[in-house]
Amino acid sequence: MKTLVIISHPSIDESGSQQFLIQALSDRSLEQVTLHPLEKTYPDGVIDVKHEQELLKSHDRIIFQFPFYWYSSPPLLKHWQDEVLTEHFAFGYRGDKLKDKELGLVLSIGLSEKEYQTGGQEGYSISELTKPFQAVARKTGMTYLKPLSIFQYAYMSEEERMGLLIRYQQYLTLKKPDSLKPREEWIIAALKETATETLRTDHSDFIIEQVIEHIEDNRMELDELRMHIDNYHE
Amino acid sequence: MKTLVIISHPSIDESGSQQFLIQALSDRSLEQVTLHPLEKTYPDGVIDVKHEQELLKSHDRIIFQFPFYWYSSPPLLKHWQDEVLTEHFAFGYRGDKLKDKELGLVLSIGLSEKEYQTGGQEGYSISELTKPFQAVARKTGMTYLKPLSIFQYAYMSEEERMGLLIRYQQYLTLKKPDSLKPREEWIIAALKETATETLRTDHSDFIIEQVIEHIEDNRMELDELRMHIDNYHE
Repeated sequence: MKTLVIISHPSIDESGSQQFLIQALSDRSLEQVTLHPLEKTYPDGVIDVKHEQELLKSHDRIIFQFPFYWYSSPPLLKHWQDEVLTEHFAFGYRGDKLKDKELGLVLSIGLSEKEYQTGGQEGYSISELTKPFQAVARKTGMTYLKPLSIFQYAYMSEEERMGLLIRYQQYLTLKKPDSLKPREEWIIAALKETATETLRTDHSDFIIEQVIEHIEDNRMELDELRMHIDNYHE
Repeated sequence: MKTLVIISHPSIDESGSQQFLIQALSDRSLEQVTLHPLEKTYPDGVIDVKHEQELLKSHDRIIFQFPFYWYSSPPLLKHWQDEVLTEHFAFGYRGDKLKDKELGLVLSIGLSEKEYQTGGQEGYSISELTKPFQAVARKTGMTYLKPLSIFQYAYMSEEERMGLLIRYQQYLTLKKPDSLKPREEWIIAALKETATETLRTDHSDFIIEQVIEHIEDNRMELDELRMHIDNYHE
């Protein structure tokens, strides 16, 4: 599976969260991911439509990654949509080039999650406010992924950031980024690849082995419980 | 009441509906309406923030008028929002400059209204898809007006267009653009101002009088009915 990450940000170099995410993609296991920062590619705003459509065709999962200012995308990403998602390409007669691909959003959001509900500071949920993107997916025949919303990156602890990094890499690369089992397998594979000399402890080999064993034990227990439940329902 | 119509359209001169609406504003009774086409004002996309904020302050009703491509505004209007609606002006500490003003949308839409529902070609309603604008109104303390959606202008009959023209002028100028009574009063005032020699009939004075009388009779009857209902409920 190949993933295209279309990043739109008016000042990407000054954005802590965007720089962090871009760093996360420089990892070894992500050669299937293409990073595509729009403002850097098209500083004059003139979009190469053919090139963009070829990029879309050669990837399976398309990600729109942007700061969620005024409940929508930055202007250049909207311009990109208006220019690239043309009739007969993205919709309409023979417009099936995006059909059965996936569309995901990676949103960086300045306020906390609890403000996005009735009575909160923003009053509406992220699901409500991102409906236009869901409609884009629907119109073009794409499967819409649950957005990855990053709330208040600036206030995240180091540990939270590490968690985000893992969720982000999984969001871009896992077949089913929401289910537990593939995420476990992903973690185990990543642990096995970890260069133990980079860890700040003398027993890193042992610790990694322990963590893997722990995840696998949990998984066996979960599978057994599921089997019991399935039997019970029969 | 002063109304600011912020128009955003990537090629406004080629748009039949936009040209029609602009024509409608050249009417005598609309000197309280300021027309503000963004792409003409800022062809290089560099927005004069101070000037825009002064414009907003000196008007009571703000209209975003644009073609509803990909379920959102054209890029320049989004850029305008990101630049002009700053903290301490539009929201946040002392950010009350738009408070109690009104925000309305005039959308030109290529498909018919019935496609904007579950099972329709677009799948979501205009209310769902314009939620981000409702959120802008909410955040800035503005009263959100029911959008004026213009479906399939290209297929409208001459009569439908005249109806649109009236709805549009009322949307921009009437205190309560949705209630019947002020709309009636508006029509009567417009009829009284009509230069009768422009009508294609010999009895235009008589016809206009008749129409006014008819509307006034209807209103009396409606008021009487309402009185009866109110008495009944007491």
